[in-house]
Amino acid sequence: MSTDRGGLDALIDGIRARRWRALGRGLSLLEDAAPEAPALVGRLFPLAGGAFVIGVTGPPGSGKSTLVRGLARSFRASGRRVGILAVDPTSPYTGGALLGDRVRMQDLATDREIFIRSMATRGAVGGLAPATRDAVDLLDAAGFDPILVETVGVGQDEVDVMRTVDAVVVVTVPGLGDEIQAIKAGIMEIADVFVVNKADRPGVERAVRDLHSALEMAEDGSARRPIVKTVASRDEGIEELRARLEACREQLESSDELERRRFDHLRVRIEALLERRVLAATAAAVDLEAELHEASRRKEDPYTLAERLWRTVLARHREASGES
Amino acid sequence: MSTDRGGLDALIDGIRARRWRALGRGLSLLEDAAPEAPALVGRLFPLAGGAFVIGVTGPPGSGKSTLVRGLARSFRASGRRVGILAVDPTSPYTGGALLGDRVRMQDLATDREIFIRSMATRGAVGGLAPATRDAVDLLDAAGFDPILVETVGVGQDEVDVMRTVDAVVVVTVPGLGDEIQAIKAGIMEIADVFVVNKADRPGVERAVRDLHSALEMAEDGSARRPIVKTVASRDEGIEELRARLEACREQLESSDELERRRFDHLRVRIEALLERRVLAATAAAVDLEAELHEASRRKEDPYTLAERLWRTVLARHREASGES
Repeated sequence: MSTDRGGLDALIDGIRARRWRALGRGLSLLEDAAPEAPALVGRLFPLAGGAFVIGVTGPPGSGKSTLVRGLARSFRASGRRVGILAVDPTSPYTGGALLGDRVRMQDLATDREIFIRSMATRGAVGGLAPATRDAVDLLDAAGFDPILVETVGVGQDEVDVMRTVDAVVVVTVPGLGDEIQAIKAGIMEIADVFVVNKADRPGVERAVRDLHSALEMAEDGSARRPIVKTVASRDEGIEELRARLEACREQLESSDELERRRFDHLRVRIEALLERRVLAATAAAVDLEAELHEASRRKEDPYTLAERLWRTVLARHREASGES
Repeated sequence: MSTDRGGLDALIDGIRARRWRALGRGLSLLEDAAPEAPALVGRLFPLAGGAFVIGVTGPPGSGKSTLVRGLARSFRASGRRVGILAVDPTSPYTGGALLGDRVRMQDLATDREIFIRSMATRGAVGGLAPATRDAVDLLDAAGFDPILVETVGVGQDEVDVMRTVDAVVVVTVPGLGDEIQAIKAGIMEIADVFVVNKADRPGVERAVRDLHSALEMAEDGSARRPIVKTVASRDEGIEELRARLEACREQLESSDELERRRFDHLRVRIEALLERRVLAATAAAVDLEAELHEASRRKEDPYTLAERLWRTVLARHREASGES
């Protein structure tokens, strides 16, 4: 129904009125990269840009979901409407644990001003980051602010997603050892606030100290980033974390840093769409499987093949233009 | 010098004769994605394809470098020439530890039939995977077999690199806890052999059991993959690991699985080159920074902008063709 103009109008109206069904249907279209997605984003994009988007990431078992739930309640108590996107990893290995997290989050669902959506990565076209970014625009246009984007620290998609948010919170816990900090390396550089959760466990001071040392090693100003101790299961430290995030927002907005970050995000987003476009055009112009055959027999090298395919795409378009 | 035909011929001759300077110069051209790189790969690619490429990955501190060194010695003792590519992560946070690893590997450098090269990711155009894949072709064409590709488990680049090798070894150590296994999730699916290194530490049986449980949860045949206990610093378990890898190679070669994997790798490689091509063509056709400005003010949505840029690239090519 949402392909025609009237259907899209009704969907946009429903999203702006924050009707649960409209939000859910719109997000499904974006998650599936449905044919309607570009038109939907075309309508949502001009309405968005007001919300502050906070990414929360950390290893499985660090209590991210509980923390995000507490943070959402805290923002809600200060009068804000909160959107939450919980991004599932692709892996079958962590599916069980995450499902548990999702169930635990449902007690929030009775509050009509907090909207939670779980995004599945499996089968997402071109990775999860583009779909997540579209979903953020939808929640933003619907009037949710802030929007919390939660990911599990499992690799590629996580880094990509965290490169599309305004501010990044990295969660760790005591007792994971030095190694864990190095593993989070791709993410640590873009963190704005660090959280040591489960701070009632032994080793919390050591964890904070290790984190400080790692940040000082970086010599890029990281050492000044705040480290907040929380016990999310007892709502301890959540208010301080929210205050830190409000301060971070103010600082980013009053400098040109927020604008700079969003410009970078937009560049990454456009590049991802162009990459998707060239792959689609190639698939339309040639039989890629057949083309790969000679190369797989080492008869044609990858650079020559790629250049030939690119020329074919361009020539096909030229013919099509000539015919029309 | 290597841009002209004669220079390239001399370089190829040097590489095939495994002269250290020629190998080093060729690898630098590929690592830098130099203008000469496509022509060089064009010459190397038909000569390559014979080597078995083994990826070794695991968290910092798991003793990967020592393991890879031991494995290389073991293959060498069985009469093989061994190539090693040690892929450094981009992050400044792990730079110190890795530098140490590199230094420790230098005692191998006195053996002329083991070639070691450290690949830096910083500044690699289009990620590290394409440059690593080109470097593998070079070592392959030079007659090294097997080729060991070592990465640190820090995210995006690691997964990309591991998706370009024939077989994957995942290294873990006792005492990292359940969490570590979930973190490795993006990699676990593509592992062929698991290693629990530092097996003289307490908790080794627990680590093996946890790994078994995680693999059994996956319900995709993972449970049958071997788990090898090693103490790499004392060369314990290395022969068993090599035997497992030889068996893995035989099994992959005798089925159509190796061919299937390499076909997939080639597809990914071609797609990456096409993506690089469209971004270069866009940069040549428009001023991307200026184009992003309207969108950054929410005046134009990303899908419309990307489509407009794509049309511009196509039109620019049509004009160029019409003129010629």
